[in-house]
Parts: sequence; C-alpha cells; structure tokens
Amino acid sequence: MVIGKVVGTVVSTRKYESIQGHKLLVVENLLSDRKERFVAADRIGAGIGQLVLVATGSAVQTALSQPAPIDAMVVGIVDQEPDIRAE
Amino acid sequence: MVIGKVVGTVVSTRKYESIQGHKLLVVENLLSDRKERFVAADRIGAGIGQLVLVATGSAVQTALSQPAPIDAMVVGIVDQEPDIRAE
Amino acid sequence: MVIGKVVGTVVSTRKYESIQGHKLLVVENLLSDRKERFVAADRIGAGIGQLVLVATGSAVQTALSQPAPIDAMVVGIVDQEPDIRAE
Amino acid sequence: MVIGKVVGTVVSTRKYESIQGHKLLVVENLLSDRKERFVAADRIGAGIGQLVLVATGSAVQTALSQPAPIDAMVVGIVDQEPDIRAE
Amino acid sequence: MVIGKVVGTVVSTRKYESIQGHKLLVVENLLSDRKERFVAADRIGAGIGQLVLVATGSAVQTALSQPAPIDAMVVGIVDQEPDIRAE
Repeated sequence: MVIGKVVGTVVSTRKYESIQGHKLLVVENLLSDRKERFVAADRIGAGIGQLVLVATGSAVQTALSQPAPIDAMVVGIVDQEPDIRAE
Repeated sequence: MVIGKVVGTVVSTRKYESIQGHKLLVVENLLSDRKERFVAADRIGAGIGQLVLVATGSAVQTALSQPAPIDAMVVGIVDQEPDIRAE
Repeated sequence: MVIGKVVGTVVSTRKYESIQGHKLLVVENLLSDRKERFVAADRIGAGIGQLVLVATGSAVQTALSQPAPIDAMVVGIVDQEPDIRAE
Repeated sequence: MVIGKVVGTVVSTRKYESIQGHKLLVVENLLSDRKERFVAADRIGAGIGQLVLVATGSAVQTALSQPAPIDAMVVGIVDQEPDIRAE
Repeated sequence: MVIGKVVGTVVSTRKYESIQGHKLLVVENLLSDRKERFVAADRIGAGIGQLVLVATGSAVQTALSQPAPIDAMVVGIVDQEPDIRAE
C-alpha cells in the first residue's frame, strides 16, 4: 500500500457503469522520491489535502461490493504523517 | 487508475482473436513526471487528443465480455484536466 | 519479493474492517538504488529497524485468513543483510 | 499493453515444463523513454526486428491453453510504428 | 519475465510456513539499465553467478504445488547471456 495525499478530483461524465458511485481522487504518493500521482476510488469520504492509505492491484476487488475495473482504492484515512526514521 | 491523453492508435492485422473488436490506443500518462506511454483497449470510442481514465491489471477483466489478454482499458472519458493542488 | 527495513508505522483509525488486526509498517526497499518505500501489513511482529522479507501483489491473499485489500505483506524476518556479490 | 521491438531470443534448456513449447523473446519497450527490456513468450512467430504488441500480468493466462508461469506474451504483430502526436 | 543473475541468498529463520522449502535468491535484473534487484524463490537449484529466467506476479502461483505468498520465481536456467541486437 502507499500513503498519499489527496491533491485533486476527477470528473468523468461518461464512464463504465460499475465505477459509478465511487468518488475518483488524484492521490500523490508521499513515500516516493519521484512525483508519483495516480487516481484512486474512494468510498470513505476523503477530501483534498487529507492523508490516505491506498491499496492497489487485484486486492482492491476484495473491498468492492461488485467487481469493477478499479485498480487503486482508498482503504483508510491516515491520522498523521508517519514518523520515518532514516538509517 | 491513471489519467492519460490519447496520442496515437495501433494497427495490428495479426493478433489474438480475443482482442479483436477492441480499438487499441496509445495513451500518455498525464500524472507522471516521466514520459510514460502504453497501449490501452477502448470500447467507449475515445479519440486522439481526448483525456481518458485508464484502469490497468487484472481489474480490466471485469470490464470485458469475455476473458482476453488485455491489461489496460479506457474506462471513462475525463471531462477536463483535473485541477491539481500542489502542497 | 523484496528485502526491506522497517522505518516507520502507520496509524489509521478510520479504515476498512478487513485490514484491522494487521499492523501497518512503512518499509524501505534495501534492494533498490532509488529511495523506495511502501506500506506492508504485518502479523509476524516485526519492529522498527528490522530486516523483513515482503511479498507483494495478489500472492499476499494466500497469507491472509480472509480476503482483504492488502497488496504487500511481511512474510519473513531476514536474519542478516544478504551478502551480495557484485559482478 | 506495450509496443516493443524483438531484439533477441532466450535459450533455456532447463526450464519448467509448462513453459516449454513457447518461444522466449527479448523485447524492448518502444513506448518508454528508458531502456526497458523484458522477456515475453510467443506463439505467433514474431522474429528479430519485428514490432509486437505485448500483454503483461495475469491477463496473459487467458491466452494460454494451460496455466503457466508466464507474465508477458506477444498478442499481436504491429503493422507499423504508431504515429504518435505530441502535444 | 526477466533474465537475471543470482547475486546472493536470503536467510530467514522466521517465515511463513508456505514459503519454507523454497530457496530464496537475490536476483539482479540483467535487462534493466537501472540496478534492479529482487528476491525470487527457487526449486530448480540455481547457484550464485548463474543466469536465470524469472517470472513475477500471479503467474508464479501456477508453478507452486500449493498457494504461497511468493511473487517471483525462477522458472528456468538461461544457457547463455542473450545476444541482443541494438537498433
């Protein structure tokens, strides 16, 4: 999983029916040293600026009520930026 | 998922039967700081220059009427480039 | 799999029920030449500073008692930093 | 999927039975700005220098007659290098 | 798949039962222009310095006698470094 910050939302009027009902967020990976951003589906209600835990890949299907072409999903709200101890 | 721009089409006369009937688009990832391009299947009818939402990996199979060796698929047309708020 | 060092923990009060009961660790990949960090679930009891073996992707589901949106998991404690023989 | 050029072949006398019967090609990703090469299985009969469409990940299993530890497969011959329109 | 060179072994006394019985090797990807190393399970008996063909992702499960949290596996010994023809 990654820890990311919600930096935007995606508006898509014409899309697959199975992904409707999900909010689509642009998330920036905070654990990467590159500028890595991607779109994650959200049903928890995360907002711009919040820190989120995002799962990717086929594991995402286990969090959906029906199969959908979604490969990244917000699975938690992170309470605070983790205290990372460098070597 | 990623947000990409359709920058080309792929013509392949000799290909697996199960991927016939899909348009094959070259998509450039707009959320990456590297020049990242890949081929996505499309049944929505996206055209050159359009912004699309693309799902990747095994989740793609949930959007197909029959299993096929397709690992990236256009699942939505994005209405406008997302307003991304930097830190 | 990767060998990583545990460099932090993640606190998430609001999260999917199926990932509760797992400790969430920030792991730094020791086999990469880039600074690559990610979040892995742990049930072995790894602590800050320890070397761990982490599996990623759908294989992780085979280590869970029930399906969960978890894409990286600590599957072993590594006894010592591997002796890597350069060419 | 990616578009790649076949740049080599792999000879492996001792290998898993389930991957025998597949030709193993070294393919260079033409859509990447980095030098990205990987090994793909082929049953179409692609040759050195040809442009191919390659699918990766679990979707590959849908193109096999029996499950096999193969994560990349040639699924089409590309007629010509795609005309990519830069922004 | 990738072609890699075995550059080390991993010793992990405390690990998931389902990965016991597999040798764990550190493999360096020979097809990448970055220093990319990872851990692969091995039941063929590859040794330090040998060239191996490694499959990754969910395809690995098809090579196991029982499901296990293993995401990379040696599936062949490569006879010789492939002759790669640059453009």
